[in-house]
Amino acid sequence: MDEFDRIAAFFAPLAGEPGLGLKDDAAVLTPPPGRQLVLTVDQMLEGVHFLTGDDPATIARKLLRRNLSDLAAMGAVPSGYLLTTALPPSLPEGWLAGFAAGLAKDQREFAIALWGGDSSSSRTDIAITATLIGHVAPGQALRRNGAKAGDEIWVTGTIGDAALGLEARRGLRADPTGFLTRRSLLPEPRVGLSLAGIVNAAIDISDGLIQDLGHICRESGLSAVVQAGLVPLSAEAAAHGPDVLELRLTGGDDYELILAVPPGQANALRAACAEIKITRIGVFKAGEAVELHGDNNARLNLASSGWKHF
Amino acid sequence: MDEFDRIAAFFAPLAGEPGLGLKDDAAVLTPPPGRQLVLTVDQMLEGVHFLTGDDPATIARKLLRRNLSDLAAMGAVPSGYLLTTALPPSLPEGWLAGFAAGLAKDQREFAIALWGGDSSSSRTDIAITATLIGHVAPGQALRRNGAKAGDEIWVTGTIGDAALGLEARRGLRADPTGFLTRRSLLPEPRVGLSLAGIVNAAIDISDGLIQDLGHICRESGLSAVVQAGLVPLSAEAAAHGPDVLELRLTGGDDYELILAVPPGQANALRAACAEIKITRIGVFKAGEAVELHGDNNARLNLASSGWKHF
Repeated sequence: MDEFDRIAAFFAPLAGEPGLGLKDDAAVLTPPPGRQLVLTVDQMLEGVHFLTGDDPATIARKLLRRNLSDLAAMGAVPSGYLLTTALPPSLPEGWLAGFAAGLAKDQREFAIALWGGDSSSSRTDIAITATLIGHVAPGQALRRNGAKAGDEIWVTGTIGDAALGLEARRGLRADPTGFLTRRSLLPEPRVGLSLAGIVNAAIDISDGLIQDLGHICRESGLSAVVQAGLVPLSAEAAAHGPDVLELRLTGGDDYELILAVPPGQANALRAACAEIKITRIGVFKAGEAVELHGDNNARLNLASSGWKHF
Repeated sequence: MDEFDRIAAFFAPLAGEPGLGLKDDAAVLTPPPGRQLVLTVDQMLEGVHFLTGDDPATIARKLLRRNLSDLAAMGAVPSGYLLTTALPPSLPEGWLAGFAAGLAKDQREFAIALWGGDSSSSRTDIAITATLIGHVAPGQALRRNGAKAGDEIWVTGTIGDAALGLEARRGLRADPTGFLTRRSLLPEPRVGLSLAGIVNAAIDISDGLIQDLGHICRESGLSAVVQAGLVPLSAEAAAHGPDVLELRLTGGDDYELILAVPPGQANALRAACAEIKITRIGVFKAGEAVELHGDNNARLNLASSGWKHF
């Protein structure tokens, strides 16, 4: 199959109306009336964001979900995406079919469609990127810079599962139910929440709770005080005991949201997040740091705050 | 420098208003009122689309220009772009500064700005992608499927320079003035032409005149008859003699436009392209092939029709 056969076989069936059947030089989008557009791009590289031999459908779905999480952090409704693939000639037959099947599955799951793209051979590694496009009511995009002193810090879901799951995938950690591994491979982007008017700031956790919370602090000119004991744990993460605290708080790839919530908005937040677990873990105050407090409110220091992929 | 330092140093100065200073999870765009958006993405890979050691500023500019050419082929006005970079840790210091300087230069040249992106380490090769966003009057995007039997085939500029220039860069061909090399490294996207209502179809030449003309034929359900002797040559290409005909007609990377022009529209086309050389090279007719005719109208056959990058 040449490039054009592959587009016809695997990608044209995924195309939405702005994609013009993937038969032109570009997509043509009629913007939804009275909305702003939200645009983001993320890449996944072999040996950096996924492991050689990982299931191609899961790679495709994680690529979309990482981008969808960025839209979720802005409070946007996703609508479509552009895709690039750089694939080595040595790739097994069937890889692309599996990859496209993963795209199709999450297109249905998240009501998005393919609008265009570019494919190329690479010399050695697989590299894929997706540009996601969504929309939001004017002026309602959630930002990192809107947190106020006194806002509560809330997070969705549970924190640290993906970092533990990556260790499990590498054989370094037990994961008897496979839950942690699944959290690492297939994050759950928190799209579809109506948080405008309820939260003052938001970000998704791609680089770790502490580092991403630091981005809100930096952009909002604030400190964050986090009670380590309040950070929500899955049962599967809790089973690994308290000695993995640092890994959980600095591990990336959770794609949960951190929210800055003004006092008195907790009930509105609970209503907006009806089906999603949410947890208050701390508070923003004047200053310019992320402080972590443990038992008896004693200050904890972490050896690292950041997260590197593989 | 870590990722955030690099964004602040090299990319934040390039950001336009929808980019929010590159400090959020995504860009927020207020669509231009009453316009459709046109979106395209292209990647450039080390060893595939450029050579290891090529000047980073030129790589950056060619990345933007290849995408700008796709917008030109749709008749769109460019406005902004998202960027991903995957760079090996071994990359010399200064590479990114050069790359950003190239982006800055062509941002000014084409009145576009950076709206967002993603950066990552790669294991070995450099890989960069750009998603370009432009706009067009509703229903006025130029398509590949609009050509009609009897339409004249016109091209902008001169054809085949880039393929000869690539050979020159590899030491296989003389290029005393450097013109052919420049055409290969730094194409001239034909943005800014007002062709709606004048041409019935358009495409840019990325994969070679014959192959890209074939795309219009396929999508429009037509044949194209090209007079080889009419295909416009630069003086520098002509100096390499008639034996490079096939290379010129099948060589990619020219980023000139192929236009389907109804009879009687030549003067309007000339007015719209005032400062750009345009040449009629053939005609569309019923059928489903690209026919090449030489002296005395004898049919010519080419060994290959396509174009592979390196």
